[in-house]
Parts: sequence; structure tokens; C-alpha cells
Amino acid sequence: MDFVFLGTGAGIPAKARNVSAIALELLEERGAVWLFDCGEATQHQILRTPVKPRRIEKIFITHLHGDHIFGLPGFLSSRSFQGGTEELIIYGPAGIEEFVLTSLRVSGTHVLYPLQFVEVTEGVVFEDETFIVTAMPLDHGIFCLGYRIVEKDRPGVLLVDKLRSEGIKPGPLFKRLKNGEDVQLEDGRILSGKNYLGEPQKGRVITILGDTRPCEAVDILAENADYLVHEATFSEKDVKIAHDYYHSTTVQAAEAASRARVKQLILTHISSRYLADDIIQLRNEAAAVFPETMIAEDLLSVKIPLN
Amino acid sequence: MDFVFLGTGAGIPAKARNVSAIALELLEERGAVWLFDCGEATQHQILRTPVKPRRIEKIFITHLHGDHIFGLPGFLSSRSFQGGTEELIIYGPAGIEEFVLTSLRVSGTHVLYPLQFVEVTEGVVFEDETFIVTAMPLDHGIFCLGYRIVEKDRPGVLLVDKLRSEGIKPGPLFKRLKNGEDVQLEDGRILSGKNYLGEPQKGRVITILGDTRPCEAVDILAENADYLVHEATFSEKDVKIAHDYYHSTTVQAAEAASRARVKQLILTHISSRYLADDIIQLRNEAAAVFPETMIAEDLLSVKIPLN
Ligand SMILES: [Zn+2]
Ligand SMILES: [Zn+2]
Repeated sequence: MDFVFLGTGAGIPAKARNVSAIALELLEERGAVWLFDCGEATQHQILRTPVKPRRIEKIFITHLHGDHIFGLPGFLSSRSFQGGTEELIIYGPAGIEEFVLTSLRVSGTHVLYPLQFVEVTEGVVFEDETFIVTAMPLDHGIFCLGYRIVEKDRPGVLLVDKLRSEGIKPGPLFKRLKNGEDVQLEDGRILSGKNYLGEPQKGRVITILGDTRPCEAVDILAENADYLVHEATFSEKDVKIAHDYYHSTTVQAAEAASRARVKQLILTHISSRYLADDIIQLRNEAAAVFPETMIAEDLLSVKIPLN
Repeated sequence: MDFVFLGTGAGIPAKARNVSAIALELLEERGAVWLFDCGEATQHQILRTPVKPRRIEKIFITHLHGDHIFGLPGFLSSRSFQGGTEELIIYGPAGIEEFVLTSLRVSGTHVLYPLQFVEVTEGVVFEDETFIVTAMPLDHGIFCLGYRIVEKDRPGVLLVDKLRSEGIKPGPLFKRLKNGEDVQLEDGRILSGKNYLGEPQKGRVITILGDTRPCEAVDILAENADYLVHEATFSEKDVKIAHDYYHSTTVQAAEAASRARVKQLILTHISSRYLADDIIQLRNEAAAVFPETMIAEDLLSVKIPLN
């Protein structure tokens, strides 16, 4: 599990930072990549990373501002042009389907893979054996979502050596023990699976927010997360502007991380008004409140370790 | 008058060439820039040039394929965000207005300048005292236009020294003479303006085509042009593929330039299958037929001299 930050700027593209997109690579977990937002030229940024467009199976859109969605039509077209045939599902606010389908229709684009849309309001967005994704609305003037991605705990590995040492031979019952079932041996002994399993592997929690002012939903979505990706469009010095434009400051993001007791905070969506030298200052403002803070930059890759 | 080639690739963006866009700078002629097509990340390319988005007063779209239009919503939004207030007019095939207005509406974008659309089919697209632009449909499977931009001849300069040497003093009649009128002096003499004007400045003709197979409209649009910008998606070796996908080869473009007796041919819209080494070969193929051929590359600027 890795982040690849594709665009970490706010509002309009600048030389140093493109508009918003984050890839969450789940290659070991599900052989797939999830994309969060898709600002213009996200596909251009992907060209500079190891991310394979055909591997992207889900795109989660936080809100419909252009700097978060205008890269979708081009990305979807190119994914098809390059031979992608696997289904792609786009999750996001009402309106995203109209934007994408109008763009594809007007441009005469027929993608060669199944393309689905799931309109998101609040609650469970997606769930299977490995992950559950929930969403809540934030405070951004227009409808804007934060996503909480919870990896389900994985059962412990089967303690094969222990079974062997007790004279139990490999066979179909190993699979039932691995599932935690009780099984009866031919000699009458009853074995309880849970005695032959290692520690369960605790799943990771990743919170990726759209643009927002500080609000209660942030705290709920981020609670005890391993990683919180939070916008920090402005410096604390510009707290008034941040409020007026429905954004957060560095310090407001750090305060949320602290309240939610996350392990690591990553700040993104940085206004292009801040130049390279200012970025250190932005980090310092946040780190004074929440030390485990880093500021994302375009093409930064962050490995998310197992718990 | 200068070209700035913003994107010279075909179909999908690649590291070496972005998708289609060409700026025609008319700074001396009208203090403005015209854009031809606007593929995704055109605004990103503009960041790397001296072109000012607010100076772009007209955008001419050749056709609605995504690699020619998906940069429009982002460009239009950023032009407003950066304070552009001057009117912008978009010329192009039916459908471009729906695409742009849907994108702006869904994304909640309200541009702060008047935005107009002119649906183009064929004939005169725009005319004022300095330029006339005409369009004709090409052969590209979907409706696709070529544009012929004709700079009107400029009257010669008023020969002030000659007037002075004949004892005629500056005054309101100078303006009338400059307009080529006949004027009567107080002493009864009648002067004919045309005798006091230098050589007229011959206007330039620029032909910028959308994607196309060879067709008669190319020859008409390009006739005697000073510059012909022609797609050359494929090498002559791939002439069959070019035909199947409604594109032209290097040699087909050169043959059109030769038939139309243009002064200079610029090839663009080059498939990403051709690597740096192949480009020399592509140029040689075309130059064998029409020596005054160059191949555009991203961010190339070409000065268009006065006649
Ligand atoms: Zn944003
Ligand atoms: Zn094209």
C-alpha cells in the first residue's frame, strides 16, 4: 500500500504543483490502484510514475470543482486507447456522471471497458472482503466528500509447524482450521482452529479528504487513522482567507490530526502563492501542533507500512 | 505574427509531445493571441511560454476529438481565476458549446468575462478590418475543419516627405490622402491620394488544418499560403494505417503543400510511435517532396515574417 501524490496544488496548475489527484496503490492487497480526484493533466503526471492506468479500478471524486475533475475525460479516453479493458467505477457527487458522459459523447469517445458510476452522498460507499470505504460531507461551499478507507483485519496465518509437531498431517482440514473452524480428526480429537492461528493482521485506516473548512466530519472520518491526507491550502497567517474560501490552514489540519489521534498527517492542496521557501514554514506551523506532519509534493511516493 | 506550438502529438499525451494546441500570436497586428485547438494540459504548456491567457481573444476548434478539446474547461476557468476580463469567442463545430457549458456548470465555474460561441460549418467565420478567417470541412470521419487566416493587405504609408517637398503642409487632408482619397487644396490643386502612398503591405496567409485524410479542401484552404500547418500523424510507410484512421502521412502533407504552392510547410500531430530518431526520417520523407518542410515540436516558436 502506497500513496503516489500526482497533484498537490490548489485551484489552478502551477509549474511546481499540478491540480489534485492522489493514487492509492493497493498492488499487494488487490492488484489494483484507486485514484482520489482527477484534476487536469493527471494522466500526464501518471506518465512520470510507475502507475498503470489499466490498474486503476476505482476513482473516488471528492467534489466537482474543475481542479478535481477536469482530467477525467482525458484519463478515461487514454486508458481505453492504451488497451485497458477492465471495469472502472467512478464514485462521487451527483453531476460527475453527467460531466463524464457528456464529455465522452461530444468527443465521440467510446471506451472499451465497462464504466460505472456510483453516486455518493454519505455512508458506506464500497465494501468487499478486504476493504470498506465510507464517506461523509465536509464543509466546502459546494457538496464535498471525505473518504475513510478501512482495510479489514486479516486472519492470522495457520501455524503449520505447530500442527505438524502434534502429528497432524496436511490435508483438507488445514483449510478449515485456517478459517477458524473446529474440526474432528479420525482419531476422535477435536481441534479448534483459533488455537492454530497466528496473530491477526490489523488492517490499516487511510483518510483522504476533499477541500474543507474545519468541521466535525473531519474528526469522525480521521479517528485513529494511520494516515490522514488533509488539505492545507493556506498558511495559518491567512486563516481569514482560508475561511472565506472554505479551505483549511496548516494549523487547522494539524489540530484535526491531533484531535483524531492519527499516526501521520500529510498536507496537500497547497496554494501556489507559497513558494519553495515558504513550504518549510508551512510544515513548521503544522508540526508545532502535530509533529508527525509532512507536506506532499507532486510525484511523492509514500509507503504505508503494515501494522 | 508568430506560431507557438503548444502540443504537437496525436491522440494521447506522451512525454515528448502533448496533445493538440497552437497559439497564433498577433501581438503587433491586434495585441491578441488566437488559439487553434485546446487539448488537455494546454494551460500547462502555456505556463512554459510567454503567451498570456488573458490575451487569447479567440479559440478556433477544428473538431471535437478529446485530444483537441479536453483542455478547454480548465483553460477557461484559469483565465478567469487569473483575472482575465476580456471577451473570449470560441469558434468550432456544433457540440463544443454543450461540452464547455456542461463542464463549467457541473463544476460550479462562473467565468468573469463574456464567453461567446460561434458554430462553424463552412465559409467566412470571422472578418474585421485586419483579418478574414474562412473554414472548410476536411475528411476525418467526424466533422473536422481547416481554417484559412488571411491578413488583409495594409495600405502603403503616406509619403510625408514627398508632400512636404511639394509645399503641402500637414493637416486634416493628410488623413484623407492616407485613405487614398482625392483632395482639393485651397490653391485649387487636386491631389490623388494614391500618388502619395508607398507600396501596400501584402497580407499574410496562414492555413491551419484539423486532422484529415488528403482531400480537395486542403488544396483550396492552402492555396498560395505563406504557412501551411498540416497534420502528419504517420510516416509514409504507414500509409494504410493513416487511411484507416482518417489521417495523413508526411508525404501526403508535402504533396498538398506542393500542389497548393505554399511557401512553408509545418508538420504537426505526430504519432507517439515515432521516437526522436524517427523524426529526422519523417522530415526527410516530406522534404523529398516539398523541401520547405519543418516538423513542429512542443514549445517551438516560429516567427512569420512580413511579405
Ligand atoms: Zn481544490
Ligand atoms: Zn487529433
